[in-house]
Amino acid sequence: MEKHVIAVIGCGRIAQNAHFKALSQIPGVTVKYACDIILEKARAMQEQYPALVLQSIADYRVALADDAVEAVLVLTPNDTHYGITMDALRAGKHVLCEKPIAVNHALACEMAEEAERQERMLCIGVCNRYHASVERLADMCAKGELGEIYHSVCSFRSFRGIPGLGGPFTTKARSGGGVLIDWGIHFLDLILFVLGGAKLQSVSATTYSKMAQDMTQYRYRSMWAEDTADVKNGTNDVEDYVSGFVRTDKATISLNGAWAQNVRPSEMYIDFLGSKRGARLNYGAQLRISDGETLETMETEHELPDIYLREDADFLRAIRAGELPRNHISHVLESMRLVDALYRSAELGKEITL
Amino acid sequence: MEKHVIAVIGCGRIAQNAHFKALSQIPGVTVKYACDIILEKARAMQEQYPALVLQSIADYRVALADDAVEAVLVLTPNDTHYGITMDALRAGKHVLCEKPIAVNHALACEMAEEAERQERMLCIGVCNRYHASVERLADMCAKGELGEIYHSVCSFRSFRGIPGLGGPFTTKARSGGGVLIDWGIHFLDLILFVLGGAKLQSVSATTYSKMAQDMTQYRYRSMWAEDTADVKNGTNDVEDYVSGFVRTDKATISLNGAWAQNVRPSEMYIDFLGSKRGARLNYGAQLRISDGETLETMETEHELPDIYLREDADFLRAIRAGELPRNHISHVLESMRLVDALYRSAELGKEITL
Amino acid sequence: MEKHVIAVIGCGRIAQNAHFKALSQIPGVTVKYACDIILEKARAMQEQYPALVLQSIADYRVALADDAVEAVLVLTPNDTHYGITMDALRAGKHVLCEKPIAVNHALACEMAEEAERQERMLCIGVCNRYHASVERLADMCAKGELGEIYHSVCSFRSFRGIPGLGGPFTTKARSGGGVLIDWGIHFLDLILFVLGGAKLQSVSATTYSKMAQDMTQYRYRSMWAEDTADVKNGTNDVEDYVSGFVRTDKATISLNGAWAQNVRPSEMYIDFLGSKRGARLNYGAQLRISDGETLETMETEHELPDIYLREDADFLRAIRAGELPRNHISHVLESMRLVDALYRSAELGKEITL
Amino acid sequence: MEKHVIAVIGCGRIAQNAHFKALSQIPGVTVKYACDIILEKARAMQEQYPALVLQSIADYRVALADDAVEAVLVLTPNDTHYGITMDALRAGKHVLCEKPIAVNHALACEMAEEAERQERMLCIGVCNRYHASVERLADMCAKGELGEIYHSVCSFRSFRGIPGLGGPFTTKARSGGGVLIDWGIHFLDLILFVLGGAKLQSVSATTYSKMAQDMTQYRYRSMWAEDTADVKNGTNDVEDYVSGFVRTDKATISLNGAWAQNVRPSEMYIDFLGSKRGARLNYGAQLRISDGETLETMETEHELPDIYLREDADFLRAIRAGELPRNHISHVLESMRLVDALYRSAELGKEITL
Repeated sequence: MEKHVIAVIGCGRIAQNAHFKALSQIPGVTVKYACDIILEKARAMQEQYPALVLQSIADYRVALADDAVEAVLVLTPNDTHYGITMDALRAGKHVLCEKPIAVNHALACEMAEEAERQERMLCIGVCNRYHASVERLADMCAKGELGEIYHSVCSFRSFRGIPGLGGPFTTKARSGGGVLIDWGIHFLDLILFVLGGAKLQSVSATTYSKMAQDMTQYRYRSMWAEDTADVKNGTNDVEDYVSGFVRTDKATISLNGAWAQNVRPSEMYIDFLGSKRGARLNYGAQLRISDGETLETMETEHELPDIYLREDADFLRAIRAGELPRNHISHVLESMRLVDALYRSAELGKEITL
Repeated sequence: MEKHVIAVIGCGRIAQNAHFKALSQIPGVTVKYACDIILEKARAMQEQYPALVLQSIADYRVALADDAVEAVLVLTPNDTHYGITMDALRAGKHVLCEKPIAVNHALACEMAEEAERQERMLCIGVCNRYHASVERLADMCAKGELGEIYHSVCSFRSFRGIPGLGGPFTTKARSGGGVLIDWGIHFLDLILFVLGGAKLQSVSATTYSKMAQDMTQYRYRSMWAEDTADVKNGTNDVEDYVSGFVRTDKATISLNGAWAQNVRPSEMYIDFLGSKRGARLNYGAQLRISDGETLETMETEHELPDIYLREDADFLRAIRAGELPRNHISHVLESMRLVDALYRSAELGKEITL
Repeated sequence: MEKHVIAVIGCGRIAQNAHFKALSQIPGVTVKYACDIILEKARAMQEQYPALVLQSIADYRVALADDAVEAVLVLTPNDTHYGITMDALRAGKHVLCEKPIAVNHALACEMAEEAERQERMLCIGVCNRYHASVERLADMCAKGELGEIYHSVCSFRSFRGIPGLGGPFTTKARSGGGVLIDWGIHFLDLILFVLGGAKLQSVSATTYSKMAQDMTQYRYRSMWAEDTADVKNGTNDVEDYVSGFVRTDKATISLNGAWAQNVRPSEMYIDFLGSKRGARLNYGAQLRISDGETLETMETEHELPDIYLREDADFLRAIRAGELPRNHISHVLESMRLVDALYRSAELGKEITL
Repeated sequence: MEKHVIAVIGCGRIAQNAHFKALSQIPGVTVKYACDIILEKARAMQEQYPALVLQSIADYRVALADDAVEAVLVLTPNDTHYGITMDALRAGKHVLCEKPIAVNHALACEMAEEAERQERMLCIGVCNRYHASVERLADMCAKGELGEIYHSVCSFRSFRGIPGLGGPFTTKARSGGGVLIDWGIHFLDLILFVLGGAKLQSVSATTYSKMAQDMTQYRYRSMWAEDTADVKNGTNDVEDYVSGFVRTDKATISLNGAWAQNVRPSEMYIDFLGSKRGARLNYGAQLRISDGETLETMETEHELPDIYLREDADFLRAIRAGELPRNHISHVLESMRLVDALYRSAELGKEITL
């Protein structure tokens, strides 16, 4: 059994709900430091996972300075990904950083370059690549079972959501953007993953923020990350809607995303239009493959696996094996670049060529 | 009761299934000539509607030369709309011409100009504008009940269709194009109608023809217009898929359409995203309005009315009243222009500005 | 090519919409007599199918007296099925009688006995047994691919329908009952067909007529058979809702049916719960099979075939071949008996044993 | 602020996932004893809610002997509800006992009698009565807005579930039964609640256990309560499917329930068929009301409230107020009686009269 001594930087929602549980199930892992600038959050994790976590700290530089620490998980707000990851790489640590890589593509590229310079593993939290349904679909595509995939329709549209209105999620300086960088990046990343990569050619997009112009009047069905909401004094300067059109050397992509919209039901899926077969990937669990020859549709839906467990384990395994896992930054940069380009097109109000 | 002596030019599917029945239910209408170059088709209509139809002819010029004929319905294949309509206008007839106006926007503009020059009424078969659900939605929008409509998502995607593969529908020289000009024009016309018109700014689109590259091997669920299919020796040079992105001075539009695709289920709807309320218009009968304040959704679904009856009656009424009805060519030119622009963008592989 | 000289008795909706078209496509068939007590209806069929129909008559006894006529289709209202079929059998004709066999099971049994006595073929219009999806499912069941089928859930519930309110459909003396005998018999017949027959043990049921107690106030989405509606002076003494529970020696059956109810959406399906696989048969075209081992679901949906064509051809073929086709009365009596028993249980307000 | 000193007996899943969190949010509540025969489970709760819980114990009699304890929550397995609740009542405690009341109706009646004798409040965990959608619907029904409710269709059917296969859930001696007593009781309780009570007349039912006859081979999509599963040496002697038909003095009820079946999708709803309006209550959040006059359907869906919080608070409030809350055993006995009768009918294979 491999032994891994690591640190977890950032003990907020994604740490609490996903990574600590995952880490506790991987044999051989010790979290020498649980770290959060709000020390109580780190301590709560230590209390909940006493066998896993050794210490709670507020300053992540303590962990980076400790030679016993081989790797770190960076689970902090989007705007701090760059700085902490760069520090960690320069301190010689392998890093698994939550998505999005950074608040824009240029910073993401710097991070990739630093990782290469330091000869450290830098992986990104593209957890959805670890769904059984996604693996199955990617495998079918790689074998040519869908024929040529010429177009993808991507929908991540939800009725009256918005996470933590007024808080970090809706503050551009913290998050880098709204529904596109928060949800869209997952969907676009999956498309590029299933296609086996693609060269971006041009994008045309638009973004809107119409639902919560008066934050105090905003009514919602779901506002996850509620503890961070601040509808009285907070900021909401990010988009709640995005629509775009993308040309690549493989398929074109049509995308529509809404944290909130006045249309129901919520529709979360990616369609892959292939010349032989087509697929609808319902976010996460359910996969439908329709066959153009038999006219039959095959549907599978499995219990959601612990994708965080698989992702974290893949990162740790890769450190030793030296192979680039599917969540390595080199495989993820392109979706970040796409998000960047969509934002730029929306700002300019016209198609841009890449 | 008004009396109308008219001629019907073209006795194919749309005449048989829609207009003759409609005309037979409008009091005061006499079809002096049922006309089709295949005379048997005209005769079949006369036999089925003996009280309505007086004569069957093969040459429409006979009808145009008869001063007793006040108006004509042009129900022939797309490529003949221009020629016959121009002839009819010049002969002093009012014209109701089936959609699409013509195989391109330039010809459509000529037709509009000729109608103006001749001071004749020229209406287009945008029958969907006569659905009760469409009227209700357009009325709500006009009153501002949806707030600002900022975006529309338009889906006219069907699993494994294609009308009359190999025949006129799939022969560009006859039809002007595939699913975009055949189905898309209905949907885009409805969007512009509900918006109360909009100034087009730019479009980016792509088209594909992947489903029936080998026509003899094509398997389908539905191939209406079957009698005209010719998979052995026919032509299929039109798109079966279109995706596009449109900017206007009001809303942006994201559209995806498929006569055939390897994804189920078929999805035929238009979403109107408004700042106060949003609407999903399921093709034809069903309308869902979601309210951003109450979070309630109201759904209505009415028996399909005879939209052809309403359309034909509106045309005839307008001739006498002198008002421009909602199907007047001046209200329909813009959707034709949009279709044209989408085709051009697809051909060039880039966004074009209008 | 076999030659068949037949007569069609009853030229109403089902004749117009289904059987004449079907007969016109079966090579070798001549309809020597189209018969309807409203002679115009018979004549309209003759005009529409001049190559198929030789004469139009009002009195069916003329056709029965003609030795040239080998077989008759009985397409008249439910209450006349018994009398006309008995006359036809006694005149030595083979008979295809529309469903339901008669207004009750006792009469149906007499008809079956008479057919046996006269050594004539007597088939019933259970057209749904001719769907491709039904054949496929029945075939899978016969091969044991679903394992043991222990229960069936049967839903034929529609939002705000009712055919021809006030007319023959809703007049018990004419129809024998409401939604159960009109729609339910199709569904129950399919269940028994797919099970390969079953011995009925007990039934408990209830019926209601709540939707159109004041016929003039009744609002509907669809009222097919409209021409026969008479909401002012007509009768509505049949059920618009039925619910029941059935025990057989094979599976139990839970059924709910509504011509009209204040619940949407309309749900028309039969579930077959098997120990290995289960099936949902959506009325007509669509079949979904879920596999308990792979957890996959396979869905097929084919263009609706002309089931009337297949049914009519099966009847004619059977006359010569002498084999009992799947629509032979001996295979259909049990579903009639079940309908009878459900009505009786509803009347008594308790379970009855068969 | 009222002060309440209570004990919680049973610290398993429902305690961990629902009641401790709820109690921690009710001002004035102190849990003097967290009790579980597996002491670690009690301790875990104390650790997680240090401000709420004072002591952890293994023997609930310690808590019952403490006069400071006013009320207890009984959250233990079904088979122990009776014994512990009786002990608690006799010790003078008010009791909130999780559903089902007991493993059969006779024991439940004894419990109700004991509560009356001791003049203590005895409430049952019918948490679903506290959904906002349920309240709204019950309120509409009470005001007559649905007209006469004549029938209810009840579906609690899931694809390939079964909780803790081989463990207490599937061991009749522990649970009293399978899907009917586990899920069905919630649904039937809601029906009776919305109807405002109803007098049971007769029931006919059947149960099956076909999905996991060989437990080791059972494949599932979801097996909640997994930690208690024991597919190697455990017991599975309860039903995974139930179907039944119920007559009451108000409405009839048709019910179908499956922990597991080979049919997808899972369908969890109750339809209430009213003469004016009808309702579909999708389990928990979503409510659809269709209006027979306007033909419109209104749909609402709210964030799931903390129904346990509302339930627990209602119990505590009622202790002081002395009014019978909606979860008082006297309002819940009838659904227990119905479950009992359904099991008895299934055993006898025939309808039974109540």
